[in-house]
Amino acid sequence: MATKKLASWALALQFSNLTQPVTEMAVKSIYNWAGCAIGGYALPPAGVALEAQTALLPQHSGNCSILGTDAFVDVQTAALVNGIASHVDDYDDTHADTPVHPSGPVASALLAVAELRAPVSGADFITAFVAGVEAECKLGIAVYPEHYDIGWHITSTTGTIGAAVAVGKLLGLDLEQLQHAISIASIQVIGMRDSFGTDTKPFHVGRAAQSGLLAAFLAKNGYGGSLEGLEAKYGWAHVVSTRQNVSAELSTLGSTWEITKNTFKPFPCDRIIHAAIDGWIQIHDQAVKKGLSIDDIKNVTARVNPMVLSLTDNHDPKTGLDAKFSVYHVGAVALIYGEATPAQFTDGVVKNSTVITLRDKVHVTADKGVSEHEAFVAVEYANGTKLEVHVEQALGSIEKPLSAKQLKDKFLEQVSAQIGEKQAAAAFSAFSQIANMTDVGKIARQFKRQT
Amino acid sequence: MATKKLASWALALQFSNLTQPVTEMAVKSIYNWAGCAIGGYALPPAGVALEAQTALLPQHSGNCSILGTDAFVDVQTAALVNGIASHVDDYDDTHADTPVHPSGPVASALLAVAELRAPVSGADFITAFVAGVEAECKLGIAVYPEHYDIGWHITSTTGTIGAAVAVGKLLGLDLEQLQHAISIASIQVIGMRDSFGTDTKPFHVGRAAQSGLLAAFLAKNGYGGSLEGLEAKYGWAHVVSTRQNVSAELSTLGSTWEITKNTFKPFPCDRIIHAAIDGWIQIHDQAVKKGLSIDDIKNVTARVNPMVLSLTDNHDPKTGLDAKFSVYHVGAVALIYGEATPAQFTDGVVKNSTVITLRDKVHVTADKGVSEHEAFVAVEYANGTKLEVHVEQALGSIEKPLSAKQLKDKFLEQVSAQIGEKQAAAAFSAFSQIANMTDVGKIARQFKRQT
Repeated sequence: MATKKLASWALALQFSNLTQPVTEMAVKSIYNWAGCAIGGYALPPAGVALEAQTALLPQHSGNCSILGTDAFVDVQTAALVNGIASHVDDYDDTHADTPVHPSGPVASALLAVAELRAPVSGADFITAFVAGVEAECKLGIAVYPEHYDIGWHITSTTGTIGAAVAVGKLLGLDLEQLQHAISIASIQVIGMRDSFGTDTKPFHVGRAAQSGLLAAFLAKNGYGGSLEGLEAKYGWAHVVSTRQNVSAELSTLGSTWEITKNTFKPFPCDRIIHAAIDGWIQIHDQAVKKGLSIDDIKNVTARVNPMVLSLTDNHDPKTGLDAKFSVYHVGAVALIYGEATPAQFTDGVVKNSTVITLRDKVHVTADKGVSEHEAFVAVEYANGTKLEVHVEQALGSIEKPLSAKQLKDKFLEQVSAQIGEKQAAAAFSAFSQIANMTDVGKIARQFKRQT
Repeated sequence: MATKKLASWALALQFSNLTQPVTEMAVKSIYNWAGCAIGGYALPPAGVALEAQTALLPQHSGNCSILGTDAFVDVQTAALVNGIASHVDDYDDTHADTPVHPSGPVASALLAVAELRAPVSGADFITAFVAGVEAECKLGIAVYPEHYDIGWHITSTTGTIGAAVAVGKLLGLDLEQLQHAISIASIQVIGMRDSFGTDTKPFHVGRAAQSGLLAAFLAKNGYGGSLEGLEAKYGWAHVVSTRQNVSAELSTLGSTWEITKNTFKPFPCDRIIHAAIDGWIQIHDQAVKKGLSIDDIKNVTARVNPMVLSLTDNHDPKTGLDAKFSVYHVGAVALIYGEATPAQFTDGVVKNSTVITLRDKVHVTADKGVSEHEAFVAVEYANGTKLEVHVEQALGSIEKPLSAKQLKDKFLEQVSAQIGEKQAAAAFSAFSQIANMTDVGKIARQFKRQT
């Protein structure tokens, strides 16, 4: 009954059911996603995918935006490309109880559909968004960690289903159609950890958005599927994980709101290394005050959760994307620049000789006794000084969230770089007030790119 | 090195490397696929998918055919819809060493690309097709049966990769690009057995074709991915199966040709029940000679491989698609009609009261000692007569293949029903002589549908 439970809950959900913490987090999630998508278009993958996709669609037109550009395309291309852009910086959001980055697959699909099927009100958009995010995160909990440990990228494997639920709700599917949509989405399992550090990682998110969207439109057109895609013996949960409790997790829909556990990344890289970065930036600031120089660093260490080395043990990153999965690279840039923003993950910085020299001095040990949001970091200097920091909770974790101001600054910094400060302010205004809109489909027209 | 091995072998493969048994089987596979795709368009899923897809692509144009219609669409839609149509009847082909139906994902992608990037010669088309089929089948062997037993639909899970290899070869990717294409394809794992009996099963094949095609075009445009998508710790083989020997299987590329083990279905339903159908049709023929009536049947039995009940234990099918996975339905129609063609799998026949009455008299027992291509069937009549048949090798198995005439008749029967006898003959002529064509992209224009 899991599939039916999810579908019926999603269809029954109304904006008036959402408490203020839920809508507030939904709006933050949506504008954080939009900022990442607009900013992320600057990196190659989204543009390459857009070019490949449009070359295959002769003379087509569309009214769905590629965020951060003035391009309008068909709904599936928009979902794909915005999804790629929103994840390419690894700067998006993270569900506190799993490594699911919830907004990318759902919002990338929904915004495209809101533009195609205007008018969609802000209230309806947010309600559908919450339904999709709850679906993803409940499913994520139901199969985590086994599913992730074996190698699936849980963001996109659950994201296809989240996107189908959200789009299906927006399209007004009936119960059986939404069950079919969930089934069609469930058999498209997108994303493996082997792609991390390559263009294919953000493709997971875009393709999940696009695939879930297609599942919903197929079901709307009468395309059939299983009614039990999630729980059947040969269905999603059993096939993708050695352990699952989908039915139990879905029974908490509407009582435990997963979206309230969403967190936002302060650094554009895998969140598993955020605690160490946080600590190394603190050491950078202390060193500046003490007048200690980068050149005098003898040794850099971190004692961290074992998942850090499982995901980011890359001594020799070649590209900016690669470097997002290198604990050594982030150690070097945090100590040199005192920050870790998209500017520290360019191909140029990765090849910078000062960065490389310091990267080689970083040594990391895994300790099961250290939590995923915790890190013990230290730096030893030639003069014998040793600076140490114990980060108990990384910045951006649920215990130490970004403030509203930090979130806004993050948005403006990313978006200004792509479309200019004036348009960035307009974009922030539009997305942060999305709840009041009567036609979300018009949103991208409020901040056209500076040319 | 598995991914690199597959990519480099595929790129090096030339038409002149293909022995006569290989090219002969490739041509049969291609025309059997085309017959299934043209005939399969008569069932709802392909048309529903075409309608859904084109509604999402405003004012687009294209020059890729939907087989069995006069529609021309973009390359991705053609791959999707032809793939669906080619598999919806469960009448396509089967690799003898696995349950992989090889042609659908590969040919559906390739024909669309041959129309987009004309001219593609018949020799190049066949060479790319063989590369894709070898990729699918080697990967299938490498993870079978564990991967299938857990619930994956092995045709589409390997098919995405096969399509990427075939299209990548046709597009002239370089080695690294083809490795990227394989990686992008590998992380799109499409198809679970829970969909069997629904519209979503043929969607697996269409979506695999489309997803592999997209992977190849993305890589062609410079989209990056892992170089080790198949063999990496968190890559395809380890993630989708508890056992795998991808490297060992790929080492036999070019020495053992999987395509020579392709077989063609004589009955439009799961091949696991073909042996029993074969036997029941033989009993039907004996009964006719003896003047025994359907109404006098007391009991129908089959002793079969346990996989029969695992896949087709459906006592109460509701639709024609459902009935393709009902050993009871096929028993009834084989005994009533003396054949099992698409005409015995319509919704009307499934609801026919004579069929239902006889279906309820069919009893099936699983026996591990019976092979997948074997069946012991029997029918008891009211007058005490008992007719028994032991099918050692089902018609259509590698030991008892369809003859060239049977294959041609199968093609003409399916295709005539959709586009008329004259066009069917023209279509057979075109596809069976594909090796001599200088521009495969023109093939569909040789048999336009009668209107």
